[in-house]
Amino acid sequence: MVKSVNVAIIGSGVVGSSYISQLKNLKSNIVFNVVYLAKTSESALYTTDYKPVDLASYETATTSPILPLNDLVKYLKGANRPTILVDNTSSQAIADYYPTFIKEGISIATPNKKAFSSDLKSWTEIFQAVEQPGAGLVYHECSVGAALPIIAPLKDLIATGDKVDSIEGIFSGTLSYIFNEFSTAEKSDVKFSDVVIKAKELGYTEPDPRDDLNGLDVARKVTILARLSGLDVEGPTSFPVESLIPKELEGVSSVAEFLEKLPNYDADIQKVKDEAFAEGKVLRFVGKVDVNANKVSVGIGKYGFDHPFASLKGSDNVVSIKTSKYPNPLIIQGAGAGAEITAHGVLADTIKIAERI
Amino acid sequence: MVKSVNVAIIGSGVVGSSYISQLKNLKSNIVFNVVYLAKTSESALYTTDYKPVDLASYETATTSPILPLNDLVKYLKGANRPTILVDNTSSQAIADYYPTFIKEGISIATPNKKAFSSDLKSWTEIFQAVEQPGAGLVYHECSVGAALPIIAPLKDLIATGDKVDSIEGIFSGTLSYIFNEFSTAEKSDVKFSDVVIKAKELGYTEPDPRDDLNGLDVARKVTILARLSGLDVEGPTSFPVESLIPKELEGVSSVAEFLEKLPNYDADIQKVKDEAFAEGKVLRFVGKVDVNANKVSVGIGKYGFDHPFASLKGSDNVVSIKTSKYPNPLIIQGAGAGAEITAHGVLADTIKIAERI
Repeated sequence: MVKSVNVAIIGSGVVGSSYISQLKNLKSNIVFNVVYLAKTSESALYTTDYKPVDLASYETATTSPILPLNDLVKYLKGANRPTILVDNTSSQAIADYYPTFIKEGISIATPNKKAFSSDLKSWTEIFQAVEQPGAGLVYHECSVGAALPIIAPLKDLIATGDKVDSIEGIFSGTLSYIFNEFSTAEKSDVKFSDVVIKAKELGYTEPDPRDDLNGLDVARKVTILARLSGLDVEGPTSFPVESLIPKELEGVSSVAEFLEKLPNYDADIQKVKDEAFAEGKVLRFVGKVDVNANKVSVGIGKYGFDHPFASLKGSDNVVSIKTSKYPNPLIIQGAGAGAEITAHGVLADTIKIAERI
Repeated sequence: MVKSVNVAIIGSGVVGSSYISQLKNLKSNIVFNVVYLAKTSESALYTTDYKPVDLASYETATTSPILPLNDLVKYLKGANRPTILVDNTSSQAIADYYPTFIKEGISIATPNKKAFSSDLKSWTEIFQAVEQPGAGLVYHECSVGAALPIIAPLKDLIATGDKVDSIEGIFSGTLSYIFNEFSTAEKSDVKFSDVVIKAKELGYTEPDPRDDLNGLDVARKVTILARLSGLDVEGPTSFPVESLIPKELEGVSSVAEFLEKLPNYDADIQKVKDEAFAEGKVLRFVGKVDVNANKVSVGIGKYGFDHPFASLKGSDNVVSIKTSKYPNPLIIQGAGAGAEITAHGVLADTIKIAERI
């Protein structure tokens, strides 16, 4: 008997459209029926008789208004078939609805960090819901480091009785690139502001680079890893997060003005870099979880030239996990952003769910 | 309803006993009934009415003779319940029986490399059996790099349509230690033979260090990775494998005589090391898979001082995987041997199977 599951996809942006393309070309023993596809926050493809959406023509197909989330639950439940919700958005509103989906037996695959990195109450609700009989499953590998195998191996270690001691890593592709260029094992006079401008020109930053430089994206990922390791972290602003935006520029309104004034502060961070260099170290922007000390932090760290973080290239992410079983850390490194790999990771999660439900 | 699966464990050596201890302490929503436990190649614990073996007292419990493998299949099938065979041995005979278990619907979790790295026919038989309706599943993460997340992420990438370009890595803890000590970014005159002797004293080598130095263990792991990547590798001796045993010493019978004569060949490998050092490189013993060129090899490679392989510590393994989606490689590093982590990896596989069957 061929196994068949229903899939509801929300989002067809860069990750979403790559996901749809990979799903369309998937070779699998399992049949994935896409019974709902929300292309935008307003328009969706679906039929009341659950006819699978044709993924080859979804871009030009005639849409209906999206279903409000409570109606979406009813619609999906009405099919009476194992169902996976794939949330390829970064919407807080959809994230807030996860516990309802899960309680109704609908599983979730998503790269959306919001559900797992906002207030602790949401996290607890989700994972308490998962424990109920008949509940859906939740897979969210891509909420940290895109498809890098971080969350699954961490959950595996904990499931088999291991204890996490500490996690340390570079979780922002943008800040990885900026620091890999700015601070190297060779003496260099490259200016911090010049690297930021270059990163923006290359499309590595958010439209407003301050959304990277404020460290909040890293804080969200560290919140997830800390919670997985057993710490009750209230949220991404409940622990020290070092912002790379000079205090005096916090009030600046336009991106242009910010970038124009940023060079005035180059000397400050250059001094930190030179001091580190004199110690044989480079600067990296890292997130840290110290489970025994119950401490979480995000900010600039110093690493010896022969440390794995020092030899990082391009915009790679890296994570170093120390546990009772891995006193020498388990290190995972590679691209931690990008539509293609994120979509791959979400699709791999979708398959894992389909194999279980 | 509480889910319940039957488990048959073969082996209670260093990995096996660690596995049993971790399974005994496992906190899970799934009940794992150990209905068969082969302590040695001769004695086992089981009852005809499938009463679970008490893992707290298995060491002192009265045993029966083991069941021949064909009788074991019948016994396990007789329980009429989802069943996982956990093979914690390195037995070729048990490995040869995997296709039968799988066809009969019994799933397998194992660190035993033999089944996956011997002749191609065995590999094909196993994975053809898995495709049949009602067949068991096979999880073998620990057949390469112990519990390091290598095989699962690689299978995930391939399942979602990615294409492996190349895989390169250090897959022997013993040879990792030997080369990390022998060849460093600092000039050193440490002798190869002295490092081999020290590794033996520390218990890092097989009782006969030549079983590490011949490269066959690495060749087995590379065979598995090459096959996963789509290459039809006949077996671990069907491609070039560089042995670190000097040709003239291949006929030497005793370990003592081998170690006594090994220093006579130090100058040869020292020369290779010095030449690499002059180029700013270290030596590492690596396995390589080049999918496009259809080439597999094992031997000494040279790596720049800032390459991730050069900064490896202790006896860590490392693997670098390049795919269409990861042109900058995905790198995974950490302990690649040891009873505790291997047992953890096999138990994680056991849980994953239990969640699916």
